[in-house]
Amino acid sequence: MNALVDPEDVRFFSGQSHPELAQAIAGYLGVPLETTKFERFTNDNLRIQLGASVRGRAVYVIQSLVPPVSERLVEMLMMLDIARSAAAREVHAIIPYFSYARSDKKDAPRISITARLIADLLETAGATHVMTMQLHSPQVHGFFRVPTDPLTARGLFTDYLLHEHELRHKKAIVVAPDAGSAKSAARFGRQLGLPVAVANKTRISDTEVQVDKMLRKQVRGYECAIVYDDEIATGGSMVELCEQFVKSDIQHIRLVCTHGLFVGSALKRLTAFPQVKEIITTDTVPIPPKKRLPLMTVLSVASVFGEAIRRNHLRMSIGSLFSFSDEDEVDDRQ
Amino acid sequence: MNALVDPEDVRFFSGQSHPELAQAIAGYLGVPLETTKFERFTNDNLRIQLGASVRGRAVYVIQSLVPPVSERLVEMLMMLDIARSAAAREVHAIIPYFSYARSDKKDAPRISITARLIADLLETAGATHVMTMQLHSPQVHGFFRVPTDPLTARGLFTDYLLHEHELRHKKAIVVAPDAGSAKSAARFGRQLGLPVAVANKTRISDTEVQVDKMLRKQVRGYECAIVYDDEIATGGSMVELCEQFVKSDIQHIRLVCTHGLFVGSALKRLTAFPQVKEIITTDTVPIPPKKRLPLMTVLSVASVFGEAIRRNHLRMSIGSLFSFSDEDEVDDRQ
Amino acid sequence: MNALVDPEDVRFFSGQSHPELAQAIAGYLGVPLETTKFERFTNDNLRIQLGASVRGRAVYVIQSLVPPVSERLVEMLMMLDIARSAAAREVHAIIPYFSYARSDKKDAPRISITARLIADLLETAGATHVMTMQLHSPQVHGFFRVPTDPLTARGLFTDYLLHEHELRHKKAIVVAPDAGSAKSAARFGRQLGLPVAVANKTRISDTEVQVDKMLRKQVRGYECAIVYDDEIATGGSMVELCEQFVKSDIQHIRLVCTHGLFVGSALKRLTAFPQVKEIITTDTVPIPPKKRLPLMTVLSVASVFGEAIRRNHLRMSIGSLFSFSDEDEVDDRQ
Amino acid sequence: MNALVDPEDVRFFSGQSHPELAQAIAGYLGVPLETTKFERFTNDNLRIQLGASVRGRAVYVIQSLVPPVSERLVEMLMMLDIARSAAAREVHAIIPYFSYARSDKKDAPRISITARLIADLLETAGATHVMTMQLHSPQVHGFFRVPTDPLTARGLFTDYLLHEHELRHKKAIVVAPDAGSAKSAARFGRQLGLPVAVANKTRISDTEVQVDKMLRKQVRGYECAIVYDDEIATGGSMVELCEQFVKSDIQHIRLVCTHGLFVGSALKRLTAFPQVKEIITTDTVPIPPKKRLPLMTVLSVASVFGEAIRRNHLRMSIGSLFSFSDEDEVDDRQ
Amino acid sequence: MNALVDPEDVRFFSGQSHPELAQAIAGYLGVPLETTKFERFTNDNLRIQLGASVRGRAVYVIQSLVPPVSERLVEMLMMLDIARSAAAREVHAIIPYFSYARSDKKDAPRISITARLIADLLETAGATHVMTMQLHSPQVHGFFRVPTDPLTARGLFTDYLLHEHELRHKKAIVVAPDAGSAKSAARFGRQLGLPVAVANKTRISDTEVQVDKMLRKQVRGYECAIVYDDEIATGGSMVELCEQFVKSDIQHIRLVCTHGLFVGSALKRLTAFPQVKEIITTDTVPIPPKKRLPLMTVLSVASVFGEAIRRNHLRMSIGSLFSFSDEDEVDDRQ
Amino acid sequence: MNALVDPEDVRFFSGQSHPELAQAIAGYLGVPLETTKFERFTNDNLRIQLGASVRGRAVYVIQSLVPPVSERLVEMLMMLDIARSAAAREVHAIIPYFSYARSDKKDAPRISITARLIADLLETAGATHVMTMQLHSPQVHGFFRVPTDPLTARGLFTDYLLHEHELRHKKAIVVAPDAGSAKSAARFGRQLGLPVAVANKTRISDTEVQVDKMLRKQVRGYECAIVYDDEIATGGSMVELCEQFVKSDIQHIRLVCTHGLFVGSALKRLTAFPQVKEIITTDTVPIPPKKRLPLMTVLSVASVFGEAIRRNHLRMSIGSLFSFSDEDEVDDRQ
Repeated sequence: MNALVDPEDVRFFSGQSHPELAQAIAGYLGVPLETTKFERFTNDNLRIQLGASVRGRAVYVIQSLVPPVSERLVEMLMMLDIARSAAAREVHAIIPYFSYARSDKKDAPRISITARLIADLLETAGATHVMTMQLHSPQVHGFFRVPTDPLTARGLFTDYLLHEHELRHKKAIVVAPDAGSAKSAARFGRQLGLPVAVANKTRISDTEVQVDKMLRKQVRGYECAIVYDDEIATGGSMVELCEQFVKSDIQHIRLVCTHGLFVGSALKRLTAFPQVKEIITTDTVPIPPKKRLPLMTVLSVASVFGEAIRRNHLRMSIGSLFSFSDEDEVDDRQ
Repeated sequence: MNALVDPEDVRFFSGQSHPELAQAIAGYLGVPLETTKFERFTNDNLRIQLGASVRGRAVYVIQSLVPPVSERLVEMLMMLDIARSAAAREVHAIIPYFSYARSDKKDAPRISITARLIADLLETAGATHVMTMQLHSPQVHGFFRVPTDPLTARGLFTDYLLHEHELRHKKAIVVAPDAGSAKSAARFGRQLGLPVAVANKTRISDTEVQVDKMLRKQVRGYECAIVYDDEIATGGSMVELCEQFVKSDIQHIRLVCTHGLFVGSALKRLTAFPQVKEIITTDTVPIPPKKRLPLMTVLSVASVFGEAIRRNHLRMSIGSLFSFSDEDEVDDRQ
Repeated sequence: MNALVDPEDVRFFSGQSHPELAQAIAGYLGVPLETTKFERFTNDNLRIQLGASVRGRAVYVIQSLVPPVSERLVEMLMMLDIARSAAAREVHAIIPYFSYARSDKKDAPRISITARLIADLLETAGATHVMTMQLHSPQVHGFFRVPTDPLTARGLFTDYLLHEHELRHKKAIVVAPDAGSAKSAARFGRQLGLPVAVANKTRISDTEVQVDKMLRKQVRGYECAIVYDDEIATGGSMVELCEQFVKSDIQHIRLVCTHGLFVGSALKRLTAFPQVKEIITTDTVPIPPKKRLPLMTVLSVASVFGEAIRRNHLRMSIGSLFSFSDEDEVDDRQ
Repeated sequence: MNALVDPEDVRFFSGQSHPELAQAIAGYLGVPLETTKFERFTNDNLRIQLGASVRGRAVYVIQSLVPPVSERLVEMLMMLDIARSAAAREVHAIIPYFSYARSDKKDAPRISITARLIADLLETAGATHVMTMQLHSPQVHGFFRVPTDPLTARGLFTDYLLHEHELRHKKAIVVAPDAGSAKSAARFGRQLGLPVAVANKTRISDTEVQVDKMLRKQVRGYECAIVYDDEIATGGSMVELCEQFVKSDIQHIRLVCTHGLFVGSALKRLTAFPQVKEIITTDTVPIPPKKRLPLMTVLSVASVFGEAIRRNHLRMSIGSLFSFSDEDEVDDRQ
Repeated sequence: MNALVDPEDVRFFSGQSHPELAQAIAGYLGVPLETTKFERFTNDNLRIQLGASVRGRAVYVIQSLVPPVSERLVEMLMMLDIARSAAAREVHAIIPYFSYARSDKKDAPRISITARLIADLLETAGATHVMTMQLHSPQVHGFFRVPTDPLTARGLFTDYLLHEHELRHKKAIVVAPDAGSAKSAARFGRQLGLPVAVANKTRISDTEVQVDKMLRKQVRGYECAIVYDDEIATGGSMVELCEQFVKSDIQHIRLVCTHGLFVGSALKRLTAFPQVKEIITTDTVPIPPKKRLPLMTVLSVASVFGEAIRRNHLRMSIGSLFSFSDEDEVDDRQ
Repeated sequence: MNALVDPEDVRFFSGQSHPELAQAIAGYLGVPLETTKFERFTNDNLRIQLGASVRGRAVYVIQSLVPPVSERLVEMLMMLDIARSAAAREVHAIIPYFSYARSDKKDAPRISITARLIADLLETAGATHVMTMQLHSPQVHGFFRVPTDPLTARGLFTDYLLHEHELRHKKAIVVAPDAGSAKSAARFGRQLGLPVAVANKTRISDTEVQVDKMLRKQVRGYECAIVYDDEIATGGSMVELCEQFVKSDIQHIRLVCTHGLFVGSALKRLTAFPQVKEIITTDTVPIPPKKRLPLMTVLSVASVFGEAIRRNHLRMSIGSLFSFSDEDEVDDRQ
C-alpha cells in the first residue's frame, strides 16, 4: 500500500449489521470509524445520528444485508439519506453481503425483482456509488444506475489454498454446484490450476434441491473435491453434493463459499460427513463464535474492501479486484 | 353510498400489518380483498406474490407502519413495486398509520427527516397516490410529490361523542396536549361546540414530558376534560395531563386519540386514574383483544378510508374527509 | 379470441426491420398497420413520419433489433419519441428480438452493460411499456423500469412437436446447450414429457465454443436429441453439440431456437450433418426465402405477440405467455 | 476567522432584492460581489447577465423573497439557471428571507403547498444547495431535496440582549406568540436564562388574530416581556400581545423578530404603545431608512451567512449556526 | 362542431392575465369556467384556490404571460401545482402568449435561455401538456418535454383577409419583417395567393432596429403591403418598414400580428402613417378599450384554442391548427 | 497557451468517426489519446472497451455524427455509458459535427424534433457536458439540459481570410445563403470589415432549393462574393447562389462552410463554376484525400476544441470561442 487516504477527506460509518468488519476496513485504511447513534422511538421508528460532520467529505456507509434484513436495509437507507442531506460530497454504499441479489428475476407472475427495487431505493436515498461482493448473478450489476463495483473474494481463497500443503499433493477438482456458478468456478479453477466440474442442480423449493447423478461420473477418480459457491444458507445443495461425492468415493471435500450464512442446522448437516475436511468462508456475514467450528476457516474481506476503497479514492483502477477479472488478463494503465 | 366501485376495475391487497382493517375497507366498497402470499427465504429475504392480475387496474395496497415498522415498510415497498411492474394503471398506497410522520424535522444535526425519505421511497417503488390519516404535523403533507390525501378520524369521534348521553349534561372542555395539536383540537372543539385549552408541553425525552402548570388555571371549573391527540404511545403526556386535571378537581376525563399504540404499561398507567372514564381510539393500528379494555371504545376507520377511496375512484371531491376541513366550510362543486 | 381490440383506440406502426411480422401481429388483432414514412437526409440523418394521428391512442411500435442494429435502434427511438410528443396515451415498444440482451453483464473492465443502457434509452425516448421475447438471461427483465413482458415461443414449439408423428415413437432427450439455458430447457422438457441434459460449454471467443465431452455420457442411449436454445447466430455451439451427438451415435437431431439469425455459413455447417433432421425457429428475426431450407420450420410469433397485446389492452392476465410460466402452474384470476 | 475562502474559487451574485446584504456577506468573506445586469424587454420579459465567468466555480446567488416576491423569485430562478448552464461546479441559493415558507400546508382544499413547489422549482433551475434563515416551521426543511441549511439569527439576538444593561436588572420573560414558535422561543429563553410563556393565538384572517386571555395570567408579575417571533408583517399579533401585556401591567416590552417586514401601519401601531421600548430585528429583509425608527435595532445577518458559507466551503461543520442547535449541545468533530 | 366535450370530465380555470379569453374558450366548448380565488398575504405571497374539485378530471389552466409577466408566471405555476397535487388526471397549460419564447438562445455569455427554463418549470409544477400560439421561433417547440401544440392564428387572418373586398382589387405583397419570420410569411402568402418579400432587419437594441434598404426594391410596384409578424411591442420594426414602404410609394399598408402588445407609443407612431389602413391582431394578449382604435381589427383566438382543446380531448388530430401546417397538405387519418 | 492540463486528470477517447481529429485535439493539449477497442458480435451488436481506467477522471469522448450516423451515435452513447458507470468524475461529449441539429423543429405533423431527442439520450447515457460546433440554429443550444458550449470556427476563417493577399484588393461582400444564417454571417462580415447580403432561399425538397432573384440586385457591383454557411452537403444551395452571382457578373467566389460533407456530386457541381476560386472548410467532418481538391482549404478545428477544453478544464472563460461572441464584445473577468 503506497499512497494513503487522507483521514480528513473521508468519513466511515457502520450500520448495526457488522461493526467488526466496518472497523477492520477503516483499520486497513488507517482512518477512524466514526460513531453512529441508533435509537428507537416507542412506536418502533428508528432514529439514527451520524457522529461526525460529513460536509464536503467522501462518506462510506458499511452495512451487510443480514437478518433482520429489512431492519438493516432501512437503517442503511436512513444513513445514506443523512449523509446526502448533510452535504456529503460523495456517498458510498459498501454492502459486503447484498442478500437481495438472489431476487434477480421473475420466475412467477406478480413477484418483485427486488434486487432492482433496492438498487433504485439506494439511489433515491442518496448513494452515489456502490461496492458489493460476489453478486448471485453477474447481471445484477446492471440493476444499478450509479457506478457499482462488484468485488470478489476469489483472490483470498486462491491465496489461501495455494499455500495449503495438504492440497498440493492431492488430485483435486473444483466443483460448481450449479450452472449459474460455472463461470465463476472456471475462473477459480484456472487460478488454482485445477479442472472444473459443473453439477446440474434442480431447485425443488427454497430449502430443497436435487443434484443430477451425472456429477458422479465427472468427479470419479479425483481425490479431493473443492466446491465453490457464492453462499451457503441451509446447506441443502452442499449436502446433496457431498452425498454424490461420497458415492464417487471422494474422501476429501472442501467447501468454499463467500457468504457463510449457515442457517439452522446447516453446519451440523455438513460436518456429519467425515469427508468434509474444511469449510472456508469469509466475514461478509458476521459469524458468531459458536458457529466458528475447528474445521472452519474465515478469511476477512476487510483488505479487499479496504484496498478497493483506497484505489477508488485515489483514482486507481480496481479492475483486478472485480469478480469478473482474471489476474493475468488485467493490465490496465492506471 | 350511491355510485359503486366496479370490482373488475380495482384490486385490493393487504400487507401483513393489519389484514382486518384491509378486509373491512374492501368490505365497505363491496369488493374482494385479494390474497397475497408472504414467504421468507432462508437468508431472511422476503418473497411476496400478489394473488390476482393487476394489469390495467387501480391497485390499492393497505399497510399500517406498525411494529416491526421496517418489515412493514419493506413489505409495502415490494408490493407497490410488484403492482407497478405488473402494469397496474394506478398504484395507491393506503397507509392508515404513517408512523414516520413524527420524524418530520431536524432537531439535531445529522439525523434524517425520515418522513420525507419514506415519501420519496414510496414514489420510487411505484406509488402514484397516497392516502393516510392524521399526520403528526400538517406540513408532512408537503413531503409527498404524488397526490396525497391526509384523512381525519375527527368526524368519527364527533359523531360518537355527540350521541353520548352523559356528556351532554356536563360542562366540558377540549384539551390539546401541546401546541402542535392546537389547531386540530380547535376544529374538534368547534364541531362539538366546546371551548378548547392548549397545554404547554416540554418533551424531556422520547418517553418523558412535562406539562406546564398553567393548564390548571385553564381547565379549572370544568366538569369534564376531553383530551384530543393524534397518537398515544407510552401515554406519558396523557399521564402528565391527567395529573394536572386531578389537581384541578376534574372528575371526568376522556382520552381521544387516532392512533392507539398503547406501548408498554400505557394502558395500566392511564386506567390507574379513576377519573379516566373512557379511552376512545380507532383501528388505524391493530388493537389486540387483550388491550381492548372495557373503558375503551375503538371506532373503525374503514368507512373513512372506504368512502375516500370510493369518492376518489368515482372522481368526487373528498375534501370533507380531509384533516384540515370543517364540515360547514366545505361546499365543493363535485 | 373473445373480446376484441377497438381499432379506433390503437395505432400500430412498424420500423423497417420486419414489416411482415408487424403486419401479421396487426392482422391477428384485426386492426390496420399504419404507414410510416422513412427518409434520409443527404447528411444521413433519418427523417421519420408516422402516418396516422396518435393523439390519446395506445401506440404500438414494432421493431426487431436485427442488423443493421444501430439503425434499427435509432429508428425505434425516434418512433417512440414521435408518439410520445404527439400525445399518445401509451407507447408500447414491441421488440420481438432484443439483440442487446446478450450484453447483460461486465465480464471485462470498462465495457458497457448495453442491455441496461438501451432499456434506459427506450424509456427516455418515451416507451411506457415493453414487450419482448426470450431474453438471453431472465435477469435482463430487471433492467427495465417500465413494465415489461418477457414472452416466450416455447408454447409454439411444444404445440408443434407434440403433433409431430415421428417424434412420438423415438426415445428423445432435450439438450440445453449451456448452463444459462438449463432452466428454460427444463420447462421445455417438462412440457414435452422428456428428460433434459445440460452441456457444459466454454466460450473461447464470440465465434468459438467448446463443449465438454461429459455430454456424450448424458445423451448416450437416446435416439433423438432436441437442442433448445434462445438464438443461433454462427451456429458454432450447435456444430459442437452435433459433433458430440454423432460421437454418441445419435441419428436424429432437431435444433430448436427462438431467434434464428443464421449468420454466415451457419446453415451450411449445420446441414452438413445428415443427422440434423429439422431446424425449428420463429420469425422474431426476418428469414429471407433463400435461407428457408426444406428442413427448416419457421413458426410465427405473431399470434403470441398479438394475443399478449390483446390481453394487455383488455386488462387480462398474460402470465401464461411469459417465459417463466408453466402451463399447469398458472391459474390466475383474471 | 481562521481559514479563508479562495476568491478565485467562488463567485458571488446578488439579485435585486437586497444588494446591501449581499455585499456585506461577500465583504465578510473578503471576496468581491460580481456585477449582474438586469434588463427588461418591452414585453416585460427579464434579461439577466452574470458579470463574471462561473465555469468550475462555486456560485452563490443571494436573494431575499421580498416584495415584489414573484419578480424576485423569477429573477433568482433565472440566475440559478444561468450559473448551472454556464458550467458552475456548485450552485448555492442563499435565501435570507424565504417568504413562501409560510405556505407550508393545506388548510383548505385545492390550494398549493407553495413552499414545496418553490423548493422543487429551485432544484429544477439548478440549485445544488440552499441556505436560508428561520423558516416559519422546521418541517419546511424537509421540502428540499438538495442539502439545505436552515440558519438562525438567535445567536445575534442573545449576544445583543446579554450585553444590554437595562435588561439585566429586570425580571423578564420570553413570550412565544403562538404554539408554532414555542420550541424556538424555548431555545431562546434557555440561552438568555429566562422563563418562557406561550400565547394561544387564533388566526381570524391573514391580518387579524386573537390572543387568548390566558396569557395575562402567565406573564403577570414580570417587569419585562420579550416577544420572540420569526416575522412581523402587519404586526397584528404583536399589537394583540401588547394589549395583553398592558392589561397585565407590564411596562417594558421588547419585540424581537428575524424578518422585519413592517407592512403598512405596523410600526405606527406598535410604537403607539409607550411600553414598547425596543424593536430588534435583522436585515434579512431590507429596511429602508424611513422605517429605521430610533427604537429600532437592526442586527446584520451578514456574519451568520458569511460564516456558514465559509465553513461549508471549507467543509467545516455549521451545526452550531442551525436554527435547531443549542450552543451547549453541539460538539461536533470537524 | 360535431362531438362535444363532457362538462363533467373537464375543469377550466383562468389566471388573472386574461379572464375574457378564458371565458370565451370555455364558452366555445360549452363548459363552465370555474372560479379561482386570488389573494395576497401581507408579505406579498400569493394564495390561490381553485373553485371546483379537479379529482380525476382533465384540467385546463389558461394564462397569457403578459405584464406583469413574473406575477403571471408564478400564478400559473401555482395553479398547475394545485391541480397536480389535487389528483387531476391531466393538467393542460394553455398559454396563448408565451412571451419568453423570445429568450430562445444565448447571444451573449452568461444569460439564460429562459424559454427552456420555463418549459422545465411548467413540467415541474405539473403540466402534462402545453398549448400555445405562434412561438417566436419554431425551435422553441423542442424546449418542451411534455407534448406541446404550437397553434397558429394564420387561419383567422387569411379567412378575414380573403373576405376583405378592398384587398381583392389591389396588387398586394406579403412582407416578412425579418428572416426569422420568412417561412411563416411564406405560408401566409401561399394561402392568400400573394408573393412574399423578406426584409433584412438588424436589431440595434431591444427597441431599435434598422431595415435594409434592399427592401424598397423588392416591394416597388406593389399597391399594398401586408406585413406579417408574430408580435408588435414598441412597433419599432414596423415603423422602419413603413418608412421603407413610403419611400417605395406604397399607399396602402396593413399590419398583421398575432400578439398585439402595443407598448408605449407604438400605436401612436404607427397610426402617424396615413398609409397604414388597418392593424389586424388577435386577443392572445388582452387589448384594453382605449387601445382599440377604429383601424384596428381584433380577431379572437378563442375558437382556435377551443377547437384544439376539443379535438385533443376527443382524440382527433389537430395538425391542421398547427403553426407549421398548410391547409392543403394535411390529410390525416383521424 | 499558459497553464497546462494534467495528463493524469483526464482521459481522451475517440469514436470511430474521426480519430485523426481526436488525435489532434489530444495533441494540442499534450495528453495521450487512449485506445478504444471496437468489436462487433455476430448478431451485429457492438462491443466497445475503453483502454484506460477512467475512475475519478475527466473523460472526453470525441465523435462527429457523420455517416453512418446511427452507428456513430450508438457508439457514442455506449462510450459515455462506459465512462459513467466506470466512475468517471466528469463525462464530456465532444461532438464537432452534430448532424441532427438540423432536425430542430416540427414542420410536419408526427415527426421527431430529433435534436432534442438526442440531447436527452446523451444525458441518459451519462454526458455531463457537451461541446459542439456551429449548430444549425442557435436555439438547439436550448435542447440540452447539461451545460453545453456551442463553439465556432469563425475565428479560423477570419484569421485565414484576413491574411489572404488577393482578397485585400477586391471589393468583396459576404453572402448569407438564407435568413437562418443571416446573424452568423453578419458577425463574420463585421470581423472582416465587409458588407453582408442575405439571400432568400426556398427549400423545395431536401436536395432542391430556389434562391430569390432579389439577390442579384444586392450583390451587383461587387467583385468578390464570400458565401458563409454552416454546412455544405449536396451543395444545391451553393450552386443556386453561384448561378445568381454569375448573372450578376461576379468573377470571384469563395465558399466558406464549417461542416464540409460534400455529398454525391457536390464538389463536381461547384467546381464546374470557373468563378469559384476557393472552398474553405474545416475538419469537423473527415475529408478523405480524394475530396481534397487543389482549390480546397481545410482548416483544423483541433485548436478550437483543444483550447476550449483547456480553458474549461482550468476553469477559464471560453466565451470568446462561442458561436455568438464577437471578439470586441467579450471582456470577461476570468
